[in-house]
Amino acid sequence: MSVLLTNIGELVTHDPAHGDGPGIVPDAAIVVQAGRIAWTGPAASAPAADSAVDLGGRCVIPGFVDSHSHTVFAGDRAAEFAARMTGEPYTGGGIATTVAATRTASEDTLRARGQALVREMLAQGTTTVEIKSGYGQDVATEARMLRIARELTPETTYLGAHTVPAEYADDRAGYLRLVTGPMLAACAPHARWVDVFCEPAAPTAFDEDESRAVLRAGLRAGLLARVHGNQLSAGPGVRLAVEVGAASVDHCTHLTDADVDALAGSDTVATLLPAVEFSTRSPYPDARRLLAAGAPVALATDCNPGSGYSSSMPFVVALAVREMRMSPAEALWSATAGGAAALRRDDVGHLRVGARADLTVLDAPSHTYLAYRPGVPLVSEVWKDGTRV
Amino acid sequence: MSVLLTNIGELVTHDPAHGDGPGIVPDAAIVVQAGRIAWTGPAASAPAADSAVDLGGRCVIPGFVDSHSHTVFAGDRAAEFAARMTGEPYTGGGIATTVAATRTASEDTLRARGQALVREMLAQGTTTVEIKSGYGQDVATEARMLRIARELTPETTYLGAHTVPAEYADDRAGYLRLVTGPMLAACAPHARWVDVFCEPAAPTAFDEDESRAVLRAGLRAGLLARVHGNQLSAGPGVRLAVEVGAASVDHCTHLTDADVDALAGSDTVATLLPAVEFSTRSPYPDARRLLAAGAPVALATDCNPGSGYSSSMPFVVALAVREMRMSPAEALWSATAGGAAALRRDDVGHLRVGARADLTVLDAPSHTYLAYRPGVPLVSEVWKDGTRV
Ligand SMILES: [Zn+2]
Ligand SMILES: [Zn+2]
Repeated sequence: MSVLLTNIGELVTHDPAHGDGPGIVPDAAIVVQAGRIAWTGPAASAPAADSAVDLGGRCVIPGFVDSHSHTVFAGDRAAEFAARMTGEPYTGGGIATTVAATRTASEDTLRARGQALVREMLAQGTTTVEIKSGYGQDVATEARMLRIARELTPETTYLGAHTVPAEYADDRAGYLRLVTGPMLAACAPHARWVDVFCEPAAPTAFDEDESRAVLRAGLRAGLLARVHGNQLSAGPGVRLAVEVGAASVDHCTHLTDADVDALAGSDTVATLLPAVEFSTRSPYPDARRLLAAGAPVALATDCNPGSGYSSSMPFVVALAVREMRMSPAEALWSATAGGAAALRRDDVGHLRVGARADLTVLDAPSHTYLAYRPGVPLVSEVWKDGTRV
Repeated sequence: MSVLLTNIGELVTHDPAHGDGPGIVPDAAIVVQAGRIAWTGPAASAPAADSAVDLGGRCVIPGFVDSHSHTVFAGDRAAEFAARMTGEPYTGGGIATTVAATRTASEDTLRARGQALVREMLAQGTTTVEIKSGYGQDVATEARMLRIARELTPETTYLGAHTVPAEYADDRAGYLRLVTGPMLAACAPHARWVDVFCEPAAPTAFDEDESRAVLRAGLRAGLLARVHGNQLSAGPGVRLAVEVGAASVDHCTHLTDADVDALAGSDTVATLLPAVEFSTRSPYPDARRLLAAGAPVALATDCNPGSGYSSSMPFVVALAVREMRMSPAEALWSATAGGAAALRRDDVGHLRVGARADLTVLDAPSHTYLAYRPGVPLVSEVWKDGTRV
């Protein structure tokens, strides 16, 4: 059964056959068959199909690929957020609050939260999402987080090395042995990726040697690498990510010239997470410097209860345009094809023939509206694997 | 018929009977009767009602009052927006583009756009909206805009003095005579308010004497005054607004100490429009300075196709917290009760007994989430005049 989606006012394909950059087709149509894109082009020359859907002149873009999220957890940190925004002192526990709540939460509670957030993301046009562990920091909870995440997405990431938990504060080496030993063994069956929060400037995060040990252990266990790096300082994260062939290094808020050169000369994607800078009132990464150097750039939400709890890729696109001077087309590429590159996926993030039929219909005539109309829920329908969801 | 809304996790009333500031009741209930709030308090002590609705622990806030919008127009300016964001030269016509499109649009086209935007606002929790004319700049089109606006809201504003249209560029006095004479006569029956874009720094806007003439003519015709002022420079807008007893002066991005003192000593509300600063990449107004002086502050969208096309009050609240250091409770007050004050309305913007039962249910446990989860569509249902819409 083939389906013709027609009367598309603007179709963004990222297909070089339709021109540079966004590969835009005006007055377009798509044929979907067996969950894949079978044809794209001008509506006037569309082939016949078994059924047809009129999209009323709306804009169609590839489904967003949110390559960085932490959406399985318990509790919230709204009070911490409010204190940070108003400059009030806050004596709560930060990430330790989330770790404590996640450890004691039932599997059903964790699953319900994860499902609700993934549904919320889907309603905002995100058809592929990565989800990390990292709020367990013990063997059982890390494995439980990843089992639940795996029900929600194939893109699961083992982040036992998120922070050093309080009970190991005086025994970092012991925690490293746990993360690279029994915890990894319990988690690897449920994960595609290994990740580490590499940030020597943060006492509970990991330095270069520790981070390398975590990543190399994950690689030996058959996982692929990604890195949280250069969020708070121009530390070793980018260098290490390129060294181990990580698919992505995420945050990249503070970069040296050598970091930018290393990224430009590698296939490690620089994933920017501007909703974190929004919610922590921090300076934004320099996207233009990366783009000028030819480094691939992705955009993702980092949806998490501490440093930024937005699940909205349209919001991230609007921030990228306003705060990082990306053009609307660059931001959309980074939020779709860029995210796919950061997950080493070639079946999503674009609408070339053969791609998964994951697409987002905007109640707008063009993709520019994602930034032109910030905060407005513009996603009117979402198709995943060729089916309207 | 009375309706009990119960199992409200957090109820924001702005009722001093429930404490200072937001007047929060945890684990609350509301009784609605004849479209009005008949009772609020702890769910455990709620009186009987004819029917009941369980809100599942969600947060209830007063419906947003968006006291400044331009939502009846034709065309868009997405290309102008994209050029501004990327620093490309743009040779389009700015507001003249919208004026030309609005003049030639059919009444049905204008009505459909206005209806769609008001529906979009309602879905985002806005239950009271003000709508201005100002894209006609001729007698027939200004009156047509206001007739349509009046179908959508009682809060209609005559803004013939938005800019001087091209055909009067060499005859400002002639345009002033039109705005204060035949155009006012045609528009006043459809309007509650008169407004002027008072900005000597902008050549097509109006200086102090011109603005005073517009406002005084409107007042003589029975309208109430509001002013666009101090957006681009510390001009005479605030001074004039206070002088004529305007309900609000909107933008207030550039203020002298005398302006702040004048606002604090008056009942003219300072309405801040941070989505405009977001979409024009401009510095934000200093909300804390106004609050410290005791001046009443409102927040509104200014939804318009040129300087900021967001219709989202949740987005405006998130910007107010992030960029203007308002607390979540201050921002919510300004987006509800503050907007009501800016429209001289005491029946909306709060949920005290006797208020209109206009309320917004958030898919969140507290109002803090409006800023804690930026960009996320958190509005799960909206009640207007006691009915779920
Ligand atoms: Zn993260
Ligand atoms: Zn305005």
